[in-house]
Amino acid sequence: MITQEYVHGYTDRETQRLQEQSLILEELLHSGTSYPVGSRVLEVGCGVGAQTLILLRRNPGIRLTSIDMSEESLRKAKSSVENAGYKNVEFRHENVFDDKFEPGLYDHIFICFVLEHLEQPVEALKLLMKLLSPGGTITLIEGDHSSGKWNPETAASRAAWDGLVISQQMLGHDPNIGNRLQALMCEAGIDRLRVEPLEVYADQSVPDILDGAINQIIAPMVYSAEKHILEKDLVEPGIWKQGLKDLSAVASDPRGTFFYSWFKGQGARSD
Amino acid sequence: MITQEYVHGYTDRETQRLQEQSLILEELLHSGTSYPVGSRVLEVGCGVGAQTLILLRRNPGIRLTSIDMSEESLRKAKSSVENAGYKNVEFRHENVFDDKFEPGLYDHIFICFVLEHLEQPVEALKLLMKLLSPGGTITLIEGDHSSGKWNPETAASRAAWDGLVISQQMLGHDPNIGNRLQALMCEAGIDRLRVEPLEVYADQSVPDILDGAINQIIAPMVYSAEKHILEKDLVEPGIWKQGLKDLSAVASDPRGTFFYSWFKGQGARSD
Repeated sequence: MITQEYVHGYTDRETQRLQEQSLILEELLHSGTSYPVGSRVLEVGCGVGAQTLILLRRNPGIRLTSIDMSEESLRKAKSSVENAGYKNVEFRHENVFDDKFEPGLYDHIFICFVLEHLEQPVEALKLLMKLLSPGGTITLIEGDHSSGKWNPETAASRAAWDGLVISQQMLGHDPNIGNRLQALMCEAGIDRLRVEPLEVYADQSVPDILDGAINQIIAPMVYSAEKHILEKDLVEPGIWKQGLKDLSAVASDPRGTFFYSWFKGQGARSD
Repeated sequence: MITQEYVHGYTDRETQRLQEQSLILEELLHSGTSYPVGSRVLEVGCGVGAQTLILLRRNPGIRLTSIDMSEESLRKAKSSVENAGYKNVEFRHENVFDDKFEPGLYDHIFICFVLEHLEQPVEALKLLMKLLSPGGTITLIEGDHSSGKWNPETAASRAAWDGLVISQQMLGHDPNIGNRLQALMCEAGIDRLRVEPLEVYADQSVPDILDGAINQIIAPMVYSAEKHILEKDLVEPGIWKQGLKDLSAVASDPRGTFFYSWFKGQGARSD
């Protein structure tokens, strides 16, 4: 049904990447998403808790349940949240596909960067919709690697990026899922839905954003798949190394640009 | 220096495509661009006058000069503008690279979908900046075909799209120029500049926009390069035909999505 394989791995460097990324992208991704005090929110695939902390800070007084398939990630998430002093979250080691949740229990569901790592995203959405109370909402945020574009683009940097994409596709997952969100939500029977692209464009007029996007998000994200990529011979090691270097150099190049679109889908249970 | 070759050709169908496209994209592209009554505005590469009409309607009382290298396009532009009753525009048959304009004569310069068709866009920008009065502004709008993305994407529809891109690149032009605007403007010595992406995303939640984007802009745009593409054997004729069909079918597919980013660059002469 669902594989435990995860293209980005579970290293400390990757934990740091996820936390830094979440802060840089917070306004872009969370803007417009707010939950009333007392509402029961389910976060699916919380990982190391990067989005969990933001949900708790931006939505005081919610009753949050955050689940993940990785016990190691849950431990990190729990530790971050305890360090930040939040008490209103329960962490559970769960797999959505086990279908063990009580139907209609949650007012809102939040899923960020998770569907891209599933083999059966539509099935997951169908199961999740049953967990919502009538009128409850679901919010999905996913990337679209096919929108990723930078300048100067060298053959090596494109090969490194494609290595990440192919490596994720070889697991049966879809790194370009963002631009299919509307179709997936329709197939899952979610109505009252709306999908919008959320884009980052950066050039040397905003050097800090360009550097953050390249060196705190994108280059470490590509790097996180190194093990899979080199083991499966997806990219020749010399080109891989050069590609990471070229990608990182975009941030300091006077011609440097970076463009990427995430997609946010929002739907509601109508019955 | 500059070639007269133009990938989209000069047919009546293409004239209609340019006019329909300009109306669909008007808010997206022109929003935030306005010129005071009495200001002297130069439109470079007005073509058949699709943007000219919008400039005249949105900026009453400007003194507009619209130039183009094609006499045939200028005749069409002049006829459209006369039919609409505008008197405040002078059409001139000019090539920017001939450098025959008086320096400092214009308060504002507007260029839309033109740099992508030049072999030397930076040189063109340098020449144009000399024509601005001190404090004068320049506004550039260009597409980025590398951002073009649709679902369902078939091999044939991607091949047809790539045929357009390669055919334009074979002329020495750059259909992906949008994401390089900031770098080109820097190289041309333009300061006080700002570049922003302007994106269209459409799916079946907005079927009219999806249909307009696909069947009034994108499919006819790809089709406009048919002559070059088939003559140069860039795409096998059967695949070409299927590709156009598949592209058009996106608009009526329940999973249909379309995504594209234009870029708008604005700069000012500071001395």
